[in-house]
Amino acid sequence: MTEDRETTLEVVGRPTARVDGTDKVTGRARFVSDVAVPGMLETRILRSPLPHARIRGIDVSRARAVPGVAAVLTGADLDGLDPYYGVAYKDQPLLAIGRVRYEGEPVAAVAASDAVAAEAALERIEVDYDPLPAVTTLDEALAPGAPLVHERLRPAGHFRDLRALRPVEGTNICHHVRRTRGDGARGLQRAEVVVEDVFTFPAVQHVSLESFVSIARWDGDRLTVWSGTQHPFPVRKELSEIFGVPAHRIRVIAPLIGGAFGQKCYAKYEPLAAALARAAGAPVRVWVSVTDAFRTLTRHPARIHMRTGATRDGRLVARVVRAWLDTGAYADVGPRVAGKVAYLSIGPYRWEHLDVEAFAVYTHRVPAGAFRGYGAPQAEWAGESQLNRLAAELGIDPTELRLRNLLGQGEPYDPTDRPIDGDLPALLRAAARGVGWETPPRPGRGRGVAVGVKDGGGAHSVSASLVRLHADGTATVHVGSVEMGQGPRTVMAQITAETLGLPLEGISVQEPDTDLVPYDQGSSASRSTALAGTAVHRAALDVRRQLLEIARRFFEAPPDVVTLAGGAARAGGRIATYAELIAYHFGTPGGELIGRGEFHSGERDPGAPGPTAFWELGAAAAEVEVDAETGAVRVCAYASATDAGRAINPQLCEAQDQGAAVQGLGHTLFEEVRIEGGQVQNAGLIDYRVPLADDLPPTFTAALHQDGGGPGPFGAKGVGEIGIVMPAPAVAGAVAAATGARVRDLPLTPERVWRALRAADGA
Amino acid sequence: MTEDRETTLEVVGRPTARVDGTDKVTGRARFVSDVAVPGMLETRILRSPLPHARIRGIDVSRARAVPGVAAVLTGADLDGLDPYYGVAYKDQPLLAIGRVRYEGEPVAAVAASDAVAAEAALERIEVDYDPLPAVTTLDEALAPGAPLVHERLRPAGHFRDLRALRPVEGTNICHHVRRTRGDGARGLQRAEVVVEDVFTFPAVQHVSLESFVSIARWDGDRLTVWSGTQHPFPVRKELSEIFGVPAHRIRVIAPLIGGAFGQKCYAKYEPLAAALARAAGAPVRVWVSVTDAFRTLTRHPARIHMRTGATRDGRLVARVVRAWLDTGAYADVGPRVAGKVAYLSIGPYRWEHLDVEAFAVYTHRVPAGAFRGYGAPQAEWAGESQLNRLAAELGIDPTELRLRNLLGQGEPYDPTDRPIDGDLPALLRAAARGVGWETPPRPGRGRGVAVGVKDGGGAHSVSASLVRLHADGTATVHVGSVEMGQGPRTVMAQITAETLGLPLEGISVQEPDTDLVPYDQGSSASRSTALAGTAVHRAALDVRRQLLEIARRFFEAPPDVVTLAGGAARAGGRIATYAELIAYHFGTPGGELIGRGEFHSGERDPGAPGPTAFWELGAAAAEVEVDAETGAVRVCAYASATDAGRAINPQLCEAQDQGAAVQGLGHTLFEEVRIEGGQVQNAGLIDYRVPLADDLPPTFTAALHQDGGGPGPFGAKGVGEIGIVMPAPAVAGAVAAATGARVRDLPLTPERVWRALRAADGA
Repeated sequence: MTEDRETTLEVVGRPTARVDGTDKVTGRARFVSDVAVPGMLETRILRSPLPHARIRGIDVSRARAVPGVAAVLTGADLDGLDPYYGVAYKDQPLLAIGRVRYEGEPVAAVAASDAVAAEAALERIEVDYDPLPAVTTLDEALAPGAPLVHERLRPAGHFRDLRALRPVEGTNICHHVRRTRGDGARGLQRAEVVVEDVFTFPAVQHVSLESFVSIARWDGDRLTVWSGTQHPFPVRKELSEIFGVPAHRIRVIAPLIGGAFGQKCYAKYEPLAAALARAAGAPVRVWVSVTDAFRTLTRHPARIHMRTGATRDGRLVARVVRAWLDTGAYADVGPRVAGKVAYLSIGPYRWEHLDVEAFAVYTHRVPAGAFRGYGAPQAEWAGESQLNRLAAELGIDPTELRLRNLLGQGEPYDPTDRPIDGDLPALLRAAARGVGWETPPRPGRGRGVAVGVKDGGGAHSVSASLVRLHADGTATVHVGSVEMGQGPRTVMAQITAETLGLPLEGISVQEPDTDLVPYDQGSSASRSTALAGTAVHRAALDVRRQLLEIARRFFEAPPDVVTLAGGAARAGGRIATYAELIAYHFGTPGGELIGRGEFHSGERDPGAPGPTAFWELGAAAAEVEVDAETGAVRVCAYASATDAGRAINPQLCEAQDQGAAVQGLGHTLFEEVRIEGGQVQNAGLIDYRVPLADDLPPTFTAALHQDGGGPGPFGAKGVGEIGIVMPAPAVAGAVAAATGARVRDLPLTPERVWRALRAADGA
Repeated sequence: MTEDRETTLEVVGRPTARVDGTDKVTGRARFVSDVAVPGMLETRILRSPLPHARIRGIDVSRARAVPGVAAVLTGADLDGLDPYYGVAYKDQPLLAIGRVRYEGEPVAAVAASDAVAAEAALERIEVDYDPLPAVTTLDEALAPGAPLVHERLRPAGHFRDLRALRPVEGTNICHHVRRTRGDGARGLQRAEVVVEDVFTFPAVQHVSLESFVSIARWDGDRLTVWSGTQHPFPVRKELSEIFGVPAHRIRVIAPLIGGAFGQKCYAKYEPLAAALARAAGAPVRVWVSVTDAFRTLTRHPARIHMRTGATRDGRLVARVVRAWLDTGAYADVGPRVAGKVAYLSIGPYRWEHLDVEAFAVYTHRVPAGAFRGYGAPQAEWAGESQLNRLAAELGIDPTELRLRNLLGQGEPYDPTDRPIDGDLPALLRAAARGVGWETPPRPGRGRGVAVGVKDGGGAHSVSASLVRLHADGTATVHVGSVEMGQGPRTVMAQITAETLGLPLEGISVQEPDTDLVPYDQGSSASRSTALAGTAVHRAALDVRRQLLEIARRFFEAPPDVVTLAGGAARAGGRIATYAELIAYHFGTPGGELIGRGEFHSGERDPGAPGPTAFWELGAAAAEVEVDAETGAVRVCAYASATDAGRAINPQLCEAQDQGAAVQGLGHTLFEEVRIEGGQVQNAGLIDYRVPLADDLPPTFTAALHQDGGGPGPFGAKGVGEIGIVMPAPAVAGAVAAATGARVRDLPLTPERVWRALRAADGA
């Protein structure tokens, strides 16, 4: 990407207002909660009060008798379906079948003419439970002879890499991964300094403004589902398998979504909605309360045992990691998150020796699954915290220690993978500068840093797009990226506008709808701008080629003298609008030009898995003040620096980065889904503390680095996740710098910090 | 198309059940009348009681005060719109502006919470009319100094050929067309026998089972319209021009339609629905009664003065025609129908001299527009009737007279056009054979024949299609053909199934929806199977090419050994399902293959108009019995023969042909919208007589000829219209043969036949 090209960009790289902004601020935007399907019934879900029990029987007769009730379903009513779903294992039933495995598991569901009738029916369902011993902690689940959460496992075969699922037979371990380089144990022996810690990361919840909503309607043997899902096409696939209905007869529509953060990946309540609609013979809506969202999915709590060895002069030599991820009662994407933790716990550094293991472990707890960062926050909380401790032990500035070991641009992170595609040292320096690293903090304050890395785009990624240039010279973009607040509609419109020489207001981006848009893997792994955006860019380039060819004929001019801008082609002083060119081409002011674009990660070698599409790279620095009496941590300044490759929309990229940082400050300082004896203690926003406006650091900056190194359009890469990785190690590092107290468990609650202060004083 | 290829067809050419059949017979099918948009208001339209008047004023204050009324609109409330629409001229206002031009013209419209409130409001609207002199017949309209229906005309420029609109200034003639070959007058002088007649054709109505329904909803600056329209994309264009909203922000959806027959071409009530929805701030439905459908559109009544000259031995020499089409108060497609009458009144015969003129004439009557056959029924009623009379005058059998003059396969109909692409003599012989022509009829009965020709596909035709092969090996076809009973969903599924080697049940054909399907000119002119079907076929071939390429890689085999059938590829004893090939290609069981196909009539020479896409060719023979006392005509036998090129679905083709013949028997025997003094006398099905089951001839056959000569997939052509052309001349010819009475005015009512019998007796 040369300067020259850069200066010619008209729409890309400019902080354009969101194309859905006016609709959103005027309340006109149609979120999935706003969808009303005529004749739609309301539903309620009865959930298990116990973490583990056998269901002796369920009496729904009194519930069915409630006026207005159209259907009452239990696990016994799922005949004719394959009632288990899941991405790694098909282990999760639509409704508990014979056994419940966590407190909050759906046991029965009611569809009724209104919510009052549904509630009344729910109260009249009688379930006879036979309590069973539960494993509600990693230790209980891993103890020899522990009760097994699942006796048998059925791999889903959903993704090729999960054919390599490695459960440990006869245990609660549903996936085990080990990666080595050199010899980890020997490497530690040879290191001059070794640090050893056990870090923990809590269960946290996504807390989207909008909870889970799914509407299902059957029209004969056709199923339509409106859902706040990040994954319309994978949800279609799960529905197809559960109901035995082929893909061409299932339509999944994803209207605007009020936040997701990974929570709405893959099937969640869509199968239950479809089963209820089928039983009721009418459309139904499953609308889950914020409280019950806490009983649906969390981030994986983790325990990570880590040893890192280095030379006295700060050269990293070896790291040995053993990480346990608590995936709860159902695996969801747990095996993949475990794999990611193993992969990312080494950080973007040069190592001679590595030995990294991770385990995904079933427990009788609410399932854990995808959440912004996808294992990176857990892995790098440990890895970066340990580097901060190592720096202290070595007496080396923590930025300096990193600069001595960071991978440079073009160096491989993993020998089989894409080389590092950004300037990590520059990011780290920028972040440190952002909190005034060059001058010492004022007394009582301390500073910490952290670097972040995450492979972006997901494995085996596929996105396709169509761009249609209508007869009046306006365009529509068909692409499956889900708008959950992160801005893909704006970005896709910008890419198309730039490529076709059209004004932004002349472009619409379609709602994701499996009938309307071509296949897209989904909106996760920060993939939309870079990968779905590549599909859009290629589709727009395809239209551009067609336009140039028509213009060449129209002007009877060689193609290289034709230019496209402002909705018109020009050649040698002559001009023709796109509408005129289309009318000329078709002989009538009808017709349209259709461009087709596709990205798939294995496209260079079809059939083979592709390398990481791009690297999300970032760094952050924090300055904190700790109240010695209470242990309260105040973040006075926070600076992050992120590699955007090319920011298609800088405003949206900064918002992503800042939003991620704030969400990261949440798990750093306050957030934890507390589960005791298998019971969620703090479901709901009264008891679960998320960052408020007041919690924003007074100094809070996000710097975008753009050197066009991403694989996406105009050099873009994704920026949605990396910002959530650095707050915890940066802030904890700052706390240690300020107080000497090193906390290894998140969140950094006042009590925990106070205890660490006392321990540090005692030490 | 060789025999060999034919024997390999698996799905095409077989009388497959309709893919929408089960839904239709179980009542599950969603017709446009079944669409319910949440919050949708009902509407009523106040119509003019006078054929021509100035509107002095409209008082809507009492109407607006009715509880539940959300909007009352008059022509004065259309500020900010371009309130005139029309395909040839933009002459028709959404609601009368200052003047009404026909009895039944919409003057005001109400949207209210329910129909009762809307009716109540309608009754409270007071309109002060100042009656003006009206021209309600062709003679009145053509008289010197006649009041002008329109003072000024604004051409729509909708279609390129209408830039050549030729109104006669200062008259009510909105289009005049003349075609000549040789010298018509001199040709008649040189002929040995000349016959001269004036034929008339009545206004008739389409009488669809489902009347006009349009629903409109605004979401901010976006408009969605559900409508029973044959032309989703042209309607989008009209809405775009009326409301100043670009194409990418307008969505037109055409659910299943309960019949159309041309009535639902181009914009009808969609603009009014959109204007009401905007004024009401809520979705509205405009649902027009069957009675008001008679005040919406009819077929063009016509008067045709025709002279034909021949040699004594039956060689046709010259024809001179002057035809007047009454297009009513608004032109609609009248200029095009006039052009078609001029073009088709010569019939598929060899002529030395031709001089043909046609006029579209405004009157103060309900507008006339498209109706199955589009001018051919009028033109060939005259032309074929006159040939029957000529045969009688020459003493030559009417089939024999035709056989001596019919164009052979490959002979040009018009020098600039596609040569005749079927075997007319064979069709004629087959039809005659169908009523036992080789043996004389029993006493008191007579037989007649007629040949039919119509250029199919329409001018400047564009259709595009996408075929998507999903990851599970099932497919979806995106194409804009509207399902109004004629069967395109079944036909498109068959074309795709045949091309891709898939079972029919593995294919869905999308609902036409301008957001869902690529551009399509619309479902008219018998174009769907041949032209949109070509786009579908090309899209499926595109997918086929991709599949073969992937299979070649998968099998590591040369492409020519790979075969596709039954949803799987085979090579040298190995087999891979399409799902496996897609998973192999993308490296994951996601992704899809997208094929793109397009037809446009100028594709061989982009920018130039294309020739006629294909010829609809048919012949029919009738045997009748006439009650000499009452003049009642009974059709004892009717046989038609139609060239289908290749019948993709023979059952549907036969149904099309029989349906067209029955509809033609309607205007032959009973149907006429009687308008006296500008007032429709028989709106509604109590007073307007259509054929009943009892009216079907006891012997009634439809023979399909298939020699693969069409331009469509597998040699198909369209068959939807030609069958309506022959009944009138064949039956009238049979009446003359039975009785000597020659009737030149349709329908052949008992009274008219009785009078003709008396005249014939007197002669």
